[in-house]
Amino acid sequence: MRLLLASTSRLYGQVYLEYLMDELREFFLSADSIVFVPYARPGGMDWDEYTEIARRGFKAIKIEVVGIHQLSNPAQQLKEHGGIFTGGGNTFVLLKTLYDTGHFDIIKTAVFKGMPYMGSSAGTNVAGLSIGATNDMPIVYPIAFEAFRFVPFNINPHYMDPDPTSTHMGETREQRIAEFHYFNPQPVVGLREGSWLRIQGDSVELRGALSARIFRRGLPAEEIPPGPLLL
Amino acid sequence: MRLLLASTSRLYGQVYLEYLMDELREFFLSADSIVFVPYARPGGMDWDEYTEIARRGFKAIKIEVVGIHQLSNPAQQLKEHGGIFTGGGNTFVLLKTLYDTGHFDIIKTAVFKGMPYMGSSAGTNVAGLSIGATNDMPIVYPIAFEAFRFVPFNINPHYMDPDPTSTHMGETREQRIAEFHYFNPQPVVGLREGSWLRIQGDSVELRGALSARIFRRGLPAEEIPPGPLLL
Repeated sequence: MRLLLASTSRLYGQVYLEYLMDELREFFLSADSIVFVPYARPGGMDWDEYTEIARRGFKAIKIEVVGIHQLSNPAQQLKEHGGIFTGGGNTFVLLKTLYDTGHFDIIKTAVFKGMPYMGSSAGTNVAGLSIGATNDMPIVYPIAFEAFRFVPFNINPHYMDPDPTSTHMGETREQRIAEFHYFNPQPVVGLREGSWLRIQGDSVELRGALSARIFRRGLPAEEIPPGPLLL
Repeated sequence: MRLLLASTSRLYGQVYLEYLMDELREFFLSADSIVFVPYARPGGMDWDEYTEIARRGFKAIKIEVVGIHQLSNPAQQLKEHGGIFTGGGNTFVLLKTLYDTGHFDIIKTAVFKGMPYMGSSAGTNVAGLSIGATNDMPIVYPIAFEAFRFVPFNINPHYMDPDPTSTHMGETREQRIAEFHYFNPQPVVGLREGSWLRIQGDSVELRGALSARIFRRGLPAEEIPPGPLLL
């Protein structure tokens, strides 16, 4: 298994994928083209439009991008490309569409066979055991919350620390994840914007400049610096 | 139908229900006792513990509180009490437990027959058409997102305005609700902490000191001051 799981596709003040360019060049090294999964539809944007954004983003490293919805037979055609990239948006819309199109199983099989998979935000969330640690609104109802299970934990992208000056009474991200652990046993990786995970087989490495916050059931949360992540 | 739907049970620096006490006194005027629904389990707290918090809160206005889980036959016994109060916590846990216990239909029937219903936070969210505009994490999987449908719209409790100084790339609440409207037609009431709705038959009134933010599909969001709300 070969994965690149990013918290976000864009940092404040930067262009799309800018902070990840060196990493992408290396991750998709031998790829001439990759398949983009546009189903999370950020801002309700349609599949073609979103694929066009990804296409422009990957132009800088001379990789062609084709939308999975543009393939007539994805189960056959996926292997003609050098990787998969699932973009961010709404995690519920993404997962529901993956199930409804039948592309969930096609992608899962390809990645378990070794096809490189990159996700950002919602695309990272679905790489975990379930979408149970997403921040998104449940604007559609998927047939299950079960995700790809590429990694034996859940990921909370766009992880935010509590604001100590806040007077807001809604739960903090950390409180929400603590509630998650009343009902779910798996660890949750709080991945800050600017961080990403590189996974190769069983080894998980945190990259980027920031630490990640790891939540384990029944244990205090832990800050882990960039480097190998033992989960 | 008689409803009191609050954004939160507690304001910053206040005790539980403090800001709502005058309203509660009047809303539950003829009630000696009410039934509490503790199923949202804030912080994973158990049903008895949470019911005890509600019991202490209502002591100030001399109303007894009994947990719905403490009734041997809620379908029969609900009518011996003067109202229902569903507390906040996790909306997915609340809705799943309402369905799993069969209490969803019992409560729905009682409220449509005229029993006063109060909700706060998650308890307010489930009074709408669906839980599709909740802020909560999907930590359990309910058999549907359909809610009580007491009102012909959805409610986003703990509504927060975007922070103009933020460099965070996760979606703002307003962006999330715009995405909701790509897939759902109903209006969403963004209810700020300190606001509540009083509903009597078809009339909806916004109470508290703050305006509410109303989101309608295909239209710009609108700020509505306290007073009658036309939806």
